[in-house]
Amino acid sequence: MQLSQINHPNQLRPLSISELQDLAGQIRQKHLETVATNGGHLGPGLGVVELTLALYYTLDLDRDKVTWDVGHQAYPHKLLTGRYHQFHTLRQKGGIAGYLKRGESRFDAFGAGHASTSISAALGMALARDLKGENFKVAAAIGDGSLTGGMALEAINHAGSLPKTNLLVVLNDNEMSISPNVGALSQHLNQLRFKTPVQSIERALEDQLQHLPPFGEVMSTAWSRIEKGVKRLAIPKVGAVFEELGFTYIGPVDGHNITELIAAFEQAHQLTGPVLVHVATVKGKGYELAERERVGYHAQSAFNLATGKAIPASKPQPPSYSKVFATTLTALAVSNPKAIAITAAMPTGTGLDILQKQLPQQCIDVGIAEQHAVTLAAGLACEGMRPVVAIYSTFLQRAFDQILHDVCLQKLPVFFCLDRAGVVGSDGPTHQGLYDIAYLRCIPNLVLMAPKDEAELQRMIVTGLAYTDGPIAVRYPRGNGYGVPLMDSGWEPLPIGKGEILRHGEDVLLVAYGSMVYSAMQAAAHLKEYRISATVVNARFVKPLDADLIVPLAQKFGRVFTLEEGCLMGGFGSAVAESLLDRQVNVPVIRLGVPDKLVEHATPEESLLELGLTSSQIGDRILAELRLSQPGTPIFRHRSKVEAA
Amino acid sequence: MQLSQINHPNQLRPLSISELQDLAGQIRQKHLETVATNGGHLGPGLGVVELTLALYYTLDLDRDKVTWDVGHQAYPHKLLTGRYHQFHTLRQKGGIAGYLKRGESRFDAFGAGHASTSISAALGMALARDLKGENFKVAAAIGDGSLTGGMALEAINHAGSLPKTNLLVVLNDNEMSISPNVGALSQHLNQLRFKTPVQSIERALEDQLQHLPPFGEVMSTAWSRIEKGVKRLAIPKVGAVFEELGFTYIGPVDGHNITELIAAFEQAHQLTGPVLVHVATVKGKGYELAERERVGYHAQSAFNLATGKAIPASKPQPPSYSKVFATTLTALAVSNPKAIAITAAMPTGTGLDILQKQLPQQCIDVGIAEQHAVTLAAGLACEGMRPVVAIYSTFLQRAFDQILHDVCLQKLPVFFCLDRAGVVGSDGPTHQGLYDIAYLRCIPNLVLMAPKDEAELQRMIVTGLAYTDGPIAVRYPRGNGYGVPLMDSGWEPLPIGKGEILRHGEDVLLVAYGSMVYSAMQAAAHLKEYRISATVVNARFVKPLDADLIVPLAQKFGRVFTLEEGCLMGGFGSAVAESLLDRQVNVPVIRLGVPDKLVEHATPEESLLELGLTSSQIGDRILAELRLSQPGTPIFRHRSKVEAA
Repeated sequence: MQLSQINHPNQLRPLSISELQDLAGQIRQKHLETVATNGGHLGPGLGVVELTLALYYTLDLDRDKVTWDVGHQAYPHKLLTGRYHQFHTLRQKGGIAGYLKRGESRFDAFGAGHASTSISAALGMALARDLKGENFKVAAAIGDGSLTGGMALEAINHAGSLPKTNLLVVLNDNEMSISPNVGALSQHLNQLRFKTPVQSIERALEDQLQHLPPFGEVMSTAWSRIEKGVKRLAIPKVGAVFEELGFTYIGPVDGHNITELIAAFEQAHQLTGPVLVHVATVKGKGYELAERERVGYHAQSAFNLATGKAIPASKPQPPSYSKVFATTLTALAVSNPKAIAITAAMPTGTGLDILQKQLPQQCIDVGIAEQHAVTLAAGLACEGMRPVVAIYSTFLQRAFDQILHDVCLQKLPVFFCLDRAGVVGSDGPTHQGLYDIAYLRCIPNLVLMAPKDEAELQRMIVTGLAYTDGPIAVRYPRGNGYGVPLMDSGWEPLPIGKGEILRHGEDVLLVAYGSMVYSAMQAAAHLKEYRISATVVNARFVKPLDADLIVPLAQKFGRVFTLEEGCLMGGFGSAVAESLLDRQVNVPVIRLGVPDKLVEHATPEESLLELGLTSSQIGDRILAELRLSQPGTPIFRHRSKVEAA
Repeated sequence: MQLSQINHPNQLRPLSISELQDLAGQIRQKHLETVATNGGHLGPGLGVVELTLALYYTLDLDRDKVTWDVGHQAYPHKLLTGRYHQFHTLRQKGGIAGYLKRGESRFDAFGAGHASTSISAALGMALARDLKGENFKVAAAIGDGSLTGGMALEAINHAGSLPKTNLLVVLNDNEMSISPNVGALSQHLNQLRFKTPVQSIERALEDQLQHLPPFGEVMSTAWSRIEKGVKRLAIPKVGAVFEELGFTYIGPVDGHNITELIAAFEQAHQLTGPVLVHVATVKGKGYELAERERVGYHAQSAFNLATGKAIPASKPQPPSYSKVFATTLTALAVSNPKAIAITAAMPTGTGLDILQKQLPQQCIDVGIAEQHAVTLAAGLACEGMRPVVAIYSTFLQRAFDQILHDVCLQKLPVFFCLDRAGVVGSDGPTHQGLYDIAYLRCIPNLVLMAPKDEAELQRMIVTGLAYTDGPIAVRYPRGNGYGVPLMDSGWEPLPIGKGEILRHGEDVLLVAYGSMVYSAMQAAAHLKEYRISATVVNARFVKPLDADLIVPLAQKFGRVFTLEEGCLMGGFGSAVAESLLDRQVNVPVIRLGVPDKLVEHATPEESLLELGLTSSQIGDRILAELRLSQPGTPIFRHRSKVEAA
């Protein structure tokens, strides 16, 4: 059967094992080709091809529900649920989303993007089913990494206490350290319980792939054991103790053997109460380069399938903000043993792998556990350390209460570094870093800053480390800097709560925060073509806001344009407006930023265009406002002065 | 030794067991007397008297650190760390805090109030110690209830992976179902491991208390077994599997036998790596009424020690908002089987015990697991249920990401009911419900409302249940309503996003939200004495804000006063200001609410007075603003009109 002919997962049910195996090969081919072209998550999806096929083979997806954790391993799911023909649009504007999305398909039972949510959602569905007196199956697929997240453990705790609530949890354990002992014990237990053979995971299953170029060439039969990292900590143990927590435990099952998987799932479906099927998979399975280097191939931009190398950019790129953050922090940490970086399973994404390699003692990866990361930092700060918590803006949402209750209420000097703040591009709504200004600004004692470029980020890292009066946070965008000159040392901390005037003009005042400062400067250049001269302020701090600088300027100009790459509700512009109101200065504030709606996946440039936040749009918007306020007259007050100059 | 003479916990170290036992009695007496007079947490502290004494006996608290989870069981700790003579000021303005507070004592190693934080904080301190090359002990005390919180499990997961990091976790298991089997097995394990006798928990230990009136009279030797509730779900199992998670497990130890406790702690201190001592305690120990009815005596207002009855209020009180919420929801749920209430270990506090009793199928208590509660609700909503998540404003902070990512991004119809929104009184900064307007307002798709009184709360509950376009939230204050007439049925839902004019005046515009509406009305009455007539708007919704109502009024009056019981940064007043700016209406907004600082413990009335938010202060503030804006002239624009009338 051709994968292209499948538009409903129930079409799998009449197929033979060999037909399913053949489909597995087709899924891998399509998956690889698409991710190589569009970028996206490679390893996670390749690891669950057989798992997905086998699970869906045993379900009736007109009735049954499956939730997938994070959703980055759901590409095979997408290919089996009517999205094959659109799959080439993966992660592109208007195309298939990179994560799960209820609006995209009725088979996306629950949207995802952040980790550790699938069991809670599935349990909710299962409880609703029982309350309604209906009878369908509910399954939650979750990776071993996601299982360290506290909310997944909360859900397991709850599900395990409900012996009459049927719920299948499929643990996709792709970092399992496979030892004959563990396998044998588990096999023994399963034979005792279910009298079915659960075979060793060690058997290689590449046959089905051998005939498919280009995978055959790069394929290996070697299953390298990987070191257990902190990321999965207790997983092998949690696996073993699921039964204690009220689950019936089946596994480990060879995650690339469709026959075994089907047998395990069929058994699970016959049981009452919560069941966990522990599936051992290989991340990146079927693509040797991904299998060998699982971290590197978790997610990436477009690449060459044969070599695995990223397709080089058309021109040299400035360093990313993440890299500037990490190299600067590392340089500082060398001479400051109190600087301790903390990441929540994102050492590569945040750049902290650089620090981790050079100063492993000063870098802690707690796994997917943002809440614990923040309160751990609070504990370190109590003992005089300078903890630096580096978490993406979107994931730090998970630790909102800890930031407020454990850090800010106690005024502990924890330094939060929010990567991916602003529009994030193809990851879409679940990952947008648009809310941090608003959700952090309301917390007492917290200093909030954002750099105009990567050189200022360096100074803000110094500032954050030097500030010991309380908590402080810096937000910086995804992607590359502007290529401004960087320093290797000798950075000066910035004065807290002080902005700077970057450009002096006579006609209009732009006050910008972080990534929008350059846009403001470009908009000012755009306005100059219309003979309007703009003053541009780099606010640097939204809290404390530099009211001493901004308020008199606002009075002088009689109007303020604020620019931010964040939600307008409660955001930076709102802070400027509050500050003016508090000082009884009554001038209009025109707030440019992200309105109160979701920002869908697209390139960052496409998103900014749609939001009206490119520099030329900003310039045009300012022009329009000026014209609106002075219809029929020259649009700037100092025209004569400008012309005289 | 007299408890009153102890100002440093190291004074315990030379004492004999019988002297410690005597101190235990003194602690109980002081504890009971103080809580009976001031209100506060009764059961938790009484349960850990011996645990605290024994632990501190084995530590050097000039060097060693102890973190207490939640902090509500830390009254014995406070009595042993120099606060005996101030203890009568417990929970009173300027007095001893009801929770832990670093600023209050150097022995409060980590502030607390919310659950599940103590292990993360302690692990941070332990890691800092090792990084600094120092050598002291770190212990985290945590209750079985707190252990269901995801972040505690994240911390255990992390600590368990660090075999060289010394950390003692003391599990205060006060709901343990004590069976001889469990005890025997555990004893056996401990004997094997440590060759010390761990005795059965069943031995009663009331001797030391018998001589102390009035405890002797009401004391019982009966140790009633209580049913295992969902609140502690997996705790007995988690206890058993700690060793699998990398901890050395000691226990269960009789939590009221000082000798056994000291032996267990001394053993623990000699071990390397993470150690868990599982202590079985009786909540309310030593006060029979509290032992028997542990939920009722967890925390309460002032009461009569002999009878255990609350001291009646001087006059009949209107029903609390919580009660109105719960009875109204219950009345609606009877005829709406899709209405499913969810609480996170707060059935009594939220009033949901009323629903739980009448419609147990329609009430889910997930324990301390706010994150799971919210995403579980999302799952229920996917299947057509109408989940009602009732969580205090302060605790809902724990689920910020789930509200955003799992509910609002997917526009699922979950109804959030935020109790204790606003100033909470004697619980202090950790429990203030001041941030919810700001942290929820920035999230797309979410409707936010607040009632002016308990009758409007009834209508808002109907509104929330009837609204199926997406998520919706209502916030309401702690404490009693105003005594306005309530209905038993027949409520009409409110139109979404529509406010109302409560009072028509000519001179000044007050726009109030929720609990401040009555204050605004009273302030208007106050202003009337100065012949200033005020228009008062009950905004009802902060999102969507009724701009169609408010903006034209603002234009007419040329000035708006906003009133809210919440943080000003990003709050309701900010929303009004944004709305005016967005419509190019340039009038001053004077925002009255809670400034950007912590609100310490006090009575709610004292807090509001300190914040300048009593109705007479509001009236005076408005008068001052009016005079400021029109110095030397009659303070209202329409004086002639008023005088003519």
